[in-house]
Amino acid sequence: MSDAPATKARTAMASITFTPSGETIEVPLGTSLLDAVILCELDVPAPCAGQGRCGRCRVRVRAGDVERRSNAGLVSAEILDGWAVACQTYVTGSIEVEVPERRRETVRPHGHAIAEPESLPLTCDWRQDPAVRTFELDIEPPSLADNTSDFDRLRRALAQQHGIEEVRAELPMLRRLGKDLRMANWKVSVTLEMRDWVYDAYLPPRLIRIYPGAFRHASMGVAVDLGTTSVVAYLLDFATGRVVDSASAYNKQIACGDDVISRIIYAKRKRGLERLQHLAVETINDLLDELQKRNGIELYEIHEVTVAGNTTMTHLLLGLDPQYLRAEPYIPTISASPVLEAGELGLRANILAHVHVMPSVGSYVGGDITAGVISSGMFATDKLTLFIDIGTNGEMVLGTKDWLLSCACSAGPAFEGGGVGDGMRASPGAIEDVFIADDTLEPTFRTVDDAPAVGICGSGLIDLLGELFVTGLVDKSGHLDRSAPTDRVRVHDGVPEYVVCWAGEGGADHDIALTESDITGLIRAKAAIYAGFEVLCRSVGVDLADVEEILIGGAFGQYINIEKAIRIGLLPDQPVERFKFLGNTSAQGAYAALLCVNIRHDVLDVAAKMTYLELSADNSFMDEYTSALFLPHTDLSGFPSVLAALQKRGNGSDAPRATT
Amino acid sequence: MSDAPATKARTAMASITFTPSGETIEVPLGTSLLDAVILCELDVPAPCAGQGRCGRCRVRVRAGDVERRSNAGLVSAEILDGWAVACQTYVTGSIEVEVPERRRETVRPHGHAIAEPESLPLTCDWRQDPAVRTFELDIEPPSLADNTSDFDRLRRALAQQHGIEEVRAELPMLRRLGKDLRMANWKVSVTLEMRDWVYDAYLPPRLIRIYPGAFRHASMGVAVDLGTTSVVAYLLDFATGRVVDSASAYNKQIACGDDVISRIIYAKRKRGLERLQHLAVETINDLLDELQKRNGIELYEIHEVTVAGNTTMTHLLLGLDPQYLRAEPYIPTISASPVLEAGELGLRANILAHVHVMPSVGSYVGGDITAGVISSGMFATDKLTLFIDIGTNGEMVLGTKDWLLSCACSAGPAFEGGGVGDGMRASPGAIEDVFIADDTLEPTFRTVDDAPAVGICGSGLIDLLGELFVTGLVDKSGHLDRSAPTDRVRVHDGVPEYVVCWAGEGGADHDIALTESDITGLIRAKAAIYAGFEVLCRSVGVDLADVEEILIGGAFGQYINIEKAIRIGLLPDQPVERFKFLGNTSAQGAYAALLCVNIRHDVLDVAAKMTYLELSADNSFMDEYTSALFLPHTDLSGFPSVLAALQKRGNGSDAPRATT
Repeated sequence: MSDAPATKARTAMASITFTPSGETIEVPLGTSLLDAVILCELDVPAPCAGQGRCGRCRVRVRAGDVERRSNAGLVSAEILDGWAVACQTYVTGSIEVEVPERRRETVRPHGHAIAEPESLPLTCDWRQDPAVRTFELDIEPPSLADNTSDFDRLRRALAQQHGIEEVRAELPMLRRLGKDLRMANWKVSVTLEMRDWVYDAYLPPRLIRIYPGAFRHASMGVAVDLGTTSVVAYLLDFATGRVVDSASAYNKQIACGDDVISRIIYAKRKRGLERLQHLAVETINDLLDELQKRNGIELYEIHEVTVAGNTTMTHLLLGLDPQYLRAEPYIPTISASPVLEAGELGLRANILAHVHVMPSVGSYVGGDITAGVISSGMFATDKLTLFIDIGTNGEMVLGTKDWLLSCACSAGPAFEGGGVGDGMRASPGAIEDVFIADDTLEPTFRTVDDAPAVGICGSGLIDLLGELFVTGLVDKSGHLDRSAPTDRVRVHDGVPEYVVCWAGEGGADHDIALTESDITGLIRAKAAIYAGFEVLCRSVGVDLADVEEILIGGAFGQYINIEKAIRIGLLPDQPVERFKFLGNTSAQGAYAALLCVNIRHDVLDVAAKMTYLELSADNSFMDEYTSALFLPHTDLSGFPSVLAALQKRGNGSDAPRATT
Repeated sequence: MSDAPATKARTAMASITFTPSGETIEVPLGTSLLDAVILCELDVPAPCAGQGRCGRCRVRVRAGDVERRSNAGLVSAEILDGWAVACQTYVTGSIEVEVPERRRETVRPHGHAIAEPESLPLTCDWRQDPAVRTFELDIEPPSLADNTSDFDRLRRALAQQHGIEEVRAELPMLRRLGKDLRMANWKVSVTLEMRDWVYDAYLPPRLIRIYPGAFRHASMGVAVDLGTTSVVAYLLDFATGRVVDSASAYNKQIACGDDVISRIIYAKRKRGLERLQHLAVETINDLLDELQKRNGIELYEIHEVTVAGNTTMTHLLLGLDPQYLRAEPYIPTISASPVLEAGELGLRANILAHVHVMPSVGSYVGGDITAGVISSGMFATDKLTLFIDIGTNGEMVLGTKDWLLSCACSAGPAFEGGGVGDGMRASPGAIEDVFIADDTLEPTFRTVDDAPAVGICGSGLIDLLGELFVTGLVDKSGHLDRSAPTDRVRVHDGVPEYVVCWAGEGGADHDIALTESDITGLIRAKAAIYAGFEVLCRSVGVDLADVEEILIGGAFGQYINIEKAIRIGLLPDQPVERFKFLGNTSAQGAYAALLCVNIRHDVLDVAAKMTYLELSADNSFMDEYTSALFLPHTDLSGFPSVLAALQKRGNGSDAPRATT
């Protein structure tokens, strides 16, 4: 009937109506419900990014038929009630789908644990030399006898009054220049970015802002730590060089997967990369909004932004395809990012504000680590130093000011509470600190914000495992002693577990417990990290005992109890005074680069100088990993303090728990 | 009734429906119909930019009432029929308005008068050294042992295989890099812009394009002469260094005013500057489309664009406020433009293609003149040279390779056919060449394209006035000899005129004539230009006779008959061999900058070195102008050849015409 060319076979379509949003979408038959949900930008959790593993992308089919390829995690009653796993359910005709509303945990407020300049252990000369500066100018008005252009006139005044010989400006500034100068009667303040990021020795200062009269408006920078889970932003006043405020939030990309691998998989979907990029920007924008409102500053008063993040996060922020980060041989598109403008990325700052992204070393050693090496000061020290950032991946750097060697070990999400039955992030109610009495085998614990216990966060898991081990409730292989004289050790659904908090005691409606399979996951995680230390040291021919300083960075690191981490073999058994907690080194490095322009060269140097050891190409890693799959390690000679503690308590490493 | 805050007084609105477009718009009462038309982007001519002078913005009010402040140029029958002058007619209630469809003259095809490299009288070393080059690369694929990032890998290959030590890339290139390299199996061709415009000594080459395999795609540049009236674009093949094609069109901004002053006034309107910028871009884009289609090249194969235009045109193209160009002391926002990207301006080329705008010297000596000085070669010669570009303004430059002095004289639109009753642009049917027989006083003439005569263009006007003068039909003051024995001299509506073409003879429905007031206008125009020559020479203490070369550039210049131009005192009375026609020097300069990167430095040097003499600040200009308000001049000693011709014909300068 139609005379349109039939060059393309028609795809049969079906419509989906979503409740409660009311949105309707036409999709080809065979589309997964998760893809449809994503096209409508509805908020459905997909921690495993549609691999059908996590079962969390539940939606309810209220009308119409679908094809279910898997009902993973659903019980019969739920399936009868229409519940479906969105990523495993496919459209076969028009349907109505309910998307349940989500409650979102709020990020744990870290009590504004901001590192002030004074507290950063940097040894180089970096204080208060920002790229962004403001100058007052008294420009000679033009006349018939002196008809130099407005911009050349401004240049001349900058040279004469401030010794700045050259300046450049982009269209948005030039478009308002004529009016601005005349409205101000030729007396203005101009904000310049004095030097650029990569080619800054060469390019003249750049005009970012102009306003009438004397220097009185705010000139601010924002340093962002773009984490896979949490994003933190620090607001810096360029006039004083002080941090004024900070804000943090979950990375909104969590809706597209909990870890970097899930997000890389998500990025393969139609518009997936676009959405991830948008969510990264939106997360940062919310923080910018919050900082602006709380401090009474205007969008255009934010004049520079630095961002530190792992390689996947920075690729996603820039909209770079992350697929090659995940596939062997794990290649990033770039290590050093070009200088970007806030307007180009869609960040809510002055559109001309430059965005400087910290350079990475490899696919799994990113800008968060180069920033950390900078903020830790290890790039400028003679001492043999080990820098550690533990999260989903354990990244570590060994070296001195003369050389730097790095690697990354996949620890999995265990230390962030993932993959553990009662694991959770460090939000209120998370058990973060545990002690088990030798005699009663009863635990005492502390929770985040002293809220009723609802689960166990990373530091609590390390504590708990360490306590279970030294009390003999868990043996070196990670098996629970089922004969222990306590009802807290029990077998539930065929799996042995230790109950740390009874249902009635805390805020959870069930017993909070650590199972043997949770323990296996934790042991694997700590083994991967410890093996990394060993391989790093071995490959340069030093011993872990030779390391003079062990610097612990990263957002998670600051909550680790060193003694207990050593006890389970996560950290090397070295004197406690060799360890230093540095806090959020990624954010601190971004902040340092904002405050001191020379740091930007240092961080590029660090990224260029650092050697990246790809562990999957290193045969010795698997040996070291296998040796570390015990508590604390197969080779107890490396853990003298643990051995001593065990012996003191009478719990020999091989002996079953001595009953009291 | 409404509880909305009443902080702002409500403006009474009315709706306008336009026919035949059917568009409807709500505007506040008191809006002029021209403003409403502009808001809807309908095409209504407004050569005087709404000053109520030209009466050409006619529309027809078909329903509803309006307030008419002037009916300039309309007859009663038209007014009764609803016709109104849009800029002088204001909305008092809802109305329906008919916007007549416009016929547009087509631009005279200049027969592809393209200056090939060989024909450009440049003395410097500039042939075939473009900024844009393409290189083939065979990149080593990554491995676990060599996990350098994609971009660093490309950099390494460029250094090893072509000695190019550094390269930079922007986000749009980086976003596709990973996929491109792998799809091409690591064998690619990359197009680089080797050096930048202003800071090019410092910045590394920039990646513009990448594609699989060997060098086979086109790599093109476009040089644009952005004239107030006509716009010409030349397509250059970077591989051969040859001009492949050219295209020209009227500047679409003509809809907003014929000359630069009208457009500057137009730019003051609401969204006026935005529209002018848009029209400039649209004009260039149409030419780009035409060149692409005709030559089978793709949008992304255009890798660089250069633009030469007067200061107003370049300000409008860049969206810079032109108001201060017009108001004393006539100050441009910039002389040298920053480097722009095609995507930033909205030009239909590769979005990464740089757009290089030729620098200007002052408000009335623009990039068309600096480009002309470059293409004329006068910036590199020892000879004392006068460069002239005659259009609405007469711009001129005097100097040698050691110094350059410039000025601009407002000649008005007479030489472009404006302000002259039967004047017109050089489109088909324009009388361009006239001879008047001494005996019969009958004219013979030639028209553009030999089409039936419809009017007289600039070169025709110069010819005709010269002929009228040497035949004695016009005296030195510009008065017609009413007693001449020919019915071609007559008094019409009280004004004496000479009829050059009777109504029946040509393509016009009326007699084509030159009136005494037209002659007054032409004399004023030529006097302004000649006075400019005199002031330039005097201010450096030389005589016009000392000038060794007189170079005539600009689109109009090439059609001038030198002998006849000398006869009316437009050009100095020097031996004909000292004059050279250079053609469209503005386009040629833009083209040279495209083909040879060093030219870009030369043109910046020229702009910086050139002194701009503001004639309105120069007392001697008015004296010179007054002396030149005669044919050919008060001081005949400066015009020996004209004097000789007059004496030979028996027409003494003061004597009335000798009847034959």
